[in-house]
Amino acid sequence: MQNFKSFYLFILFIVTIAQSQEHPNLILTKNGVQEIRQQLGKVPLFDSSLATIKKEVDAEMLNPISVPIPKDMAGGFTHEQHKKNYLILQKAGVLYQILNDEKYAIYVRDVFIEYAKIYPKLPLHPQTRSYARGKLFWQALNDANWLVYMSQAYDCIYEFLSKKERKFLEKDLFKPAAEFLSVGSPQFFNRIHNHSTWGNVGVGMIGLVMNDKTYIDYALNGLKSDGIAEDARDNDGGLIKKKGQKPGFFGNLDDPFSPDGYYTEGPYYQRYAMYPFLIFAEALQNNKPEMKIFEYKNGVLLKSVKALLNLTNSVGEFFPLNDGQKGMSYYSSELVVAVDIAYFYDKQDPTLLTVAKSQGQVALDPTGLKVAIAIRDGLEKPFEKKSLLLKDGADGKQGSIGIIRSKKGVNEFTLVMKNTSQGLSHGHYDKLSFSYYNNDNEIVQDYGLARFVNIEQKKGGSYLNENKTWAKQTIAHNTLVQDETSHFNGDFVTGSKFFSELFLYDDTNPDIQIVSAKEINAYPKTQLQRTMVVLNLSNFEKPLLLDIFDVKSNEVHQYDLPYFYFGQFLSTNFKYETPKIVEPLGTKNGYQHLWKEGFALVKDKNTKFTWMNNNQFYSLTSLTSSNDQIILARIGANDPEFNLRRDPTFIIRKKDTQNATFVTALETHGSYDYVSESAKNAYSNIDQLEIVFQDTIYIGIKITDKKGIKTLLLLNTKINDALQKNEISLDSKVYKWTGNYFISTID
Amino acid sequence: MQNFKSFYLFILFIVTIAQSQEHPNLILTKNGVQEIRQQLGKVPLFDSSLATIKKEVDAEMLNPISVPIPKDMAGGFTHEQHKKNYLILQKAGVLYQILNDEKYAIYVRDVFIEYAKIYPKLPLHPQTRSYARGKLFWQALNDANWLVYMSQAYDCIYEFLSKKERKFLEKDLFKPAAEFLSVGSPQFFNRIHNHSTWGNVGVGMIGLVMNDKTYIDYALNGLKSDGIAEDARDNDGGLIKKKGQKPGFFGNLDDPFSPDGYYTEGPYYQRYAMYPFLIFAEALQNNKPEMKIFEYKNGVLLKSVKALLNLTNSVGEFFPLNDGQKGMSYYSSELVVAVDIAYFYDKQDPTLLTVAKSQGQVALDPTGLKVAIAIRDGLEKPFEKKSLLLKDGADGKQGSIGIIRSKKGVNEFTLVMKNTSQGLSHGHYDKLSFSYYNNDNEIVQDYGLARFVNIEQKKGGSYLNENKTWAKQTIAHNTLVQDETSHFNGDFVTGSKFFSELFLYDDTNPDIQIVSAKEINAYPKTQLQRTMVVLNLSNFEKPLLLDIFDVKSNEVHQYDLPYFYFGQFLSTNFKYETPKIVEPLGTKNGYQHLWKEGFALVKDKNTKFTWMNNNQFYSLTSLTSSNDQIILARIGANDPEFNLRRDPTFIIRKKDTQNATFVTALETHGSYDYVSESAKNAYSNIDQLEIVFQDTIYIGIKITDKKGIKTLLLLNTKINDALQKNEISLDSKVYKWTGNYFISTID
Repeated sequence: MQNFKSFYLFILFIVTIAQSQEHPNLILTKNGVQEIRQQLGKVPLFDSSLATIKKEVDAEMLNPISVPIPKDMAGGFTHEQHKKNYLILQKAGVLYQILNDEKYAIYVRDVFIEYAKIYPKLPLHPQTRSYARGKLFWQALNDANWLVYMSQAYDCIYEFLSKKERKFLEKDLFKPAAEFLSVGSPQFFNRIHNHSTWGNVGVGMIGLVMNDKTYIDYALNGLKSDGIAEDARDNDGGLIKKKGQKPGFFGNLDDPFSPDGYYTEGPYYQRYAMYPFLIFAEALQNNKPEMKIFEYKNGVLLKSVKALLNLTNSVGEFFPLNDGQKGMSYYSSELVVAVDIAYFYDKQDPTLLTVAKSQGQVALDPTGLKVAIAIRDGLEKPFEKKSLLLKDGADGKQGSIGIIRSKKGVNEFTLVMKNTSQGLSHGHYDKLSFSYYNNDNEIVQDYGLARFVNIEQKKGGSYLNENKTWAKQTIAHNTLVQDETSHFNGDFVTGSKFFSELFLYDDTNPDIQIVSAKEINAYPKTQLQRTMVVLNLSNFEKPLLLDIFDVKSNEVHQYDLPYFYFGQFLSTNFKYETPKIVEPLGTKNGYQHLWKEGFALVKDKNTKFTWMNNNQFYSLTSLTSSNDQIILARIGANDPEFNLRRDPTFIIRKKDTQNATFVTALETHGSYDYVSESAKNAYSNIDQLEIVFQDTIYIGIKITDKKGIKTLLLLNTKINDALQKNEISLDSKVYKWTGNYFISTID
Repeated sequence: MQNFKSFYLFILFIVTIAQSQEHPNLILTKNGVQEIRQQLGKVPLFDSSLATIKKEVDAEMLNPISVPIPKDMAGGFTHEQHKKNYLILQKAGVLYQILNDEKYAIYVRDVFIEYAKIYPKLPLHPQTRSYARGKLFWQALNDANWLVYMSQAYDCIYEFLSKKERKFLEKDLFKPAAEFLSVGSPQFFNRIHNHSTWGNVGVGMIGLVMNDKTYIDYALNGLKSDGIAEDARDNDGGLIKKKGQKPGFFGNLDDPFSPDGYYTEGPYYQRYAMYPFLIFAEALQNNKPEMKIFEYKNGVLLKSVKALLNLTNSVGEFFPLNDGQKGMSYYSSELVVAVDIAYFYDKQDPTLLTVAKSQGQVALDPTGLKVAIAIRDGLEKPFEKKSLLLKDGADGKQGSIGIIRSKKGVNEFTLVMKNTSQGLSHGHYDKLSFSYYNNDNEIVQDYGLARFVNIEQKKGGSYLNENKTWAKQTIAHNTLVQDETSHFNGDFVTGSKFFSELFLYDDTNPDIQIVSAKEINAYPKTQLQRTMVVLNLSNFEKPLLLDIFDVKSNEVHQYDLPYFYFGQFLSTNFKYETPKIVEPLGTKNGYQHLWKEGFALVKDKNTKFTWMNNNQFYSLTSLTSSNDQIILARIGANDPEFNLRRDPTFIIRKKDTQNATFVTALETHGSYDYVSESAKNAYSNIDQLEIVFQDTIYIGIKITDKKGIKTLLLLNTKINDALQKNEISLDSKVYKWTGNYFISTID
């Protein structure tokens, strides 16, 4: 019996060893590979994805192996070569597993050996710009990217390598790399930030391959001690760490993700972080299914994929909230992986297949295989984006993003209103700001970031000074600026303490969708409330955007409200001056970057401006009083390296007042055809815009069109309650309604 | 016998009467209609074109008839209504004939009657801006458009109308309109101009319908006397008439068309004039086949259609030479008719079918039917645009347009070099100017016109002041400006006397295509020669544009050479200053419209500038010396109504010199992907650009790339002779060659 028990334990031990040693075990698994091999030639999208990758890797393998001593910034040779190496090696590893062709394993091994030869002696990267320098790249972030991909390649050829080779590579390359990125770079590793997620995951992935419990623990829970000073900052001015924050992978899931799956940095960085989050989750699921990582925090990882897909315009490009480069979309490689994983682990939602199909490729793993089979079998259903509120904050209580979509014919109008928290170091000072789209045309744009990612000529592809002096400043956004000063005076620590408060989000009636939020901290003693309504009125050709921006203060201020339009200026209903010489509009807080191209003192009650962009007319009608000014400005002043786009803006300025209510209606109308040269409906249809009622609770807006049709909108701006009973007397009539708003045509 | 003869004559008379009375006889004919009716339902493109028109006309006929008293400028209600009326009536007439449904004839008749009621009492149009005011529209030109279309509608319902109705309409409407446009507006009718072509054709078409020999003669040969003063000008400053010019339709065929079919005003107006030219030609062919109008001047009308199709970028948009609004293309209704007529009358060239198919519609007449049948039967062949020289001038001896196309992968690079005559009143002062395309992306743009056609807010859609002060000026173009003064000092009469002289056009070798021209009159005592080479070198990724601009003068001058690029400024190899306050670059001749955004004194022998546009990198490398300056400017100064686009330009300035040679190489390279964020080949591949030889006859250019590969180009700039033997000693080597140029890689 004793013997039997020992034997049993011995067998168990063998099995455990064998299990822990089995490779691949990260993304590909023995079973997964077997299934893929069985399906080869039977699943068109998987086969074509495989063929594309094979062609790319085969072409690259014709070049001599190049593992240069690190030297350049992004865009430069050594940077791009090391980046290419990790991308190609991950793919070559997968090809080895799927195609069972040793040439790929040999190639991966040989490149690894070159790295192992140089790595132990590498100092910090010679470029000193980063708060957390790497060894292979100028920032540790890129070294972490490298490790996330290289660990997958290592996993794929693990069993191909001799024990001696593995020992050599682990000793001289993988362990030092993991050590450097974790205990060697605590200010990078132990944060709540997309940087740290990459670091955590790189260390965690290599930990899983090497079955190293220390690294796996670092990855999941962070370093026990890090010695980070309380006021330490990164290159973007972001605080490294808030006191008491939980670091590691779990910490980075707990904190920046809201329960709705919104990632507080914004969609551009959410996309960037999505890859390590999901790929590590998949690796954990394969290795530690008992963790049920995809169920963590009510399944936030899978929710976040859906959130991200919704944070896009009609062609799948992410809204450039906070630091975000325009043009990035759900066609990016990160989203291919994300959509495939979400489909695999999230009850096979068939609408995701439509996105995957449009991506035109799948991940070369069991998740991609499943998606490709489902597409082959015609299981997809339309992916339709609807109006949506995404709450911000770990607990969903730190503001929100309101996305309102309104379709009319072939046009989808999308309002994105940002009422969030600061968004970590990539956040912009733009409380209650908005952008507005006509399909993928920006009617009113968010500037995005001031950076040309990976274009070496522009400061090595890194953030430009103008990102701080312009792109982050409040005046660069479509929101209110008090006294030419940014929200929170542009101070990151202050800004990080507060968030806007949603007052109302209502998309139940597709013809009148409302989002309204308050901000009481951006300017001390000043209270802001903005209510944006996307109105589909039968007497207007296309949806109307109604913008009510209410400001109340204890002191007298100047208030600026800019609208960053695009296109050709056509006409105004007011006279303006254009200077012979143009000067910057101000001296700081972003104002120094605006050229003052035109100026007007307003006389009429309604100020109207019409422009044309991409064959479409737009008109803005704004309620003004005789003390108001209009400033026609253009970005580009104090831009000594031509880093900024020369985009125009239309600024409404109210001076010397405590309280102000900006009411603006934005119409999309008519069209211009350059071939038939016909202009249809080139004029605004609004004859008059008025505030007909205003007290501490209610506001009443009347829109009279050119035919005299009057629309009355009454809003309760203080009590959000569907059962609230309201009553207003107006023009000797009594209006009674239940709920947040009343709307009707009136005589 | 006597009786028999009388009877015979009588019968002949009856037949003649019957023939002359048969309607329709203009575009549709009895036979043509019969053939169309037989084919209905059998020819998809014809059927769909018919259905589209029917839907449009049926929808319009639901509205009450509206023939308002004329009042507005273009874009305004009365203008647009009268325009809509003539377009709809022409279509309704055709529908009546094809569908044999009287409701269309009734509608046409009823609208005609409304016009006949008001026409006799109409004064000149109340808007006084035109040199030749209309009655229905602000300019006689639009009244002529009206008559061209209305005469077709009248022809279609001629036989439907009672004799009494015809008499009424002819007396109160058609004859007065024809009379007004001809003898009533000689300054409009008796010119060589697209305006007059419309006038001639309107009068000629109604003359053919009414069988009125006087009007037909006016149309073909103009008025015998017109009383036009010798120095009379139109609104554009164009001379009304040159002494001894032959007016009328024949005159307008003889003079502005070159033997190659190039129309001297440029493609935008050629497109506009094409409709009356061809529709009247078709009407004449139907009524007076003995005239053989399509063979007139060696078939210039049909050649002109081909010329026009070639004057387009890769998506069929016309090059905006002279006054031309960008975006106009061969998808315009005029070109649908033109292509169908050209196919019908020009030996059924099957490549035209490809264009017709892409247009997606055909004319509802026998020409359109023939095209649609041929497309149905799959007869089309690819329409490939090749490099082409189009000579200007009635005799082909007044300069030329050189169009060089070079394909590389999916990119078609197109150089358009303008070495023409003035181009009548729509001409720009831009001798030896060029534009350059990468598919439909403008790498170096021609500004086009300063006008928003039919957009009422912009001066009623008519020419803006900035068309004269900016768009026509030399500095607005990519050509040389001496002493900040436009060519011919911007004087139309002087400019109209001269034309550039082609020196060399050679497209025989697709890897080195050359166009070179001289201009000796733009600046007295200064000789200009520009040689542009599109070079396909194996060591360069994409074709290289080499620009050699040689200036020789008897006096000391300042020379400016601007390049109007598009896109994001990336880098330069020189230091520049950017002013805190921007001022206009000059005070007149277009310089007052440029903001001086940056300035540099050049120190290096090569000045380099790299920018990015639509995911593509471009670099300009220019030979400079230490006295040269670079000016970074942007359009928009002194633009009090925001009429100009804020486009940038890169100006190379050589000061205080008699002679100068500008040598510039423009590379297209690499790409940027906003989704993968990868920048490929973001740098110029030119290490050095040098003049290695220069004397009175030859110039030698050496291009050394980044790898040290040297390309030598030797050009004979004085003798264009394929048999010419040349010899040059250079670096102790002797180069001998026959012909215009020598090119080779050298050690």
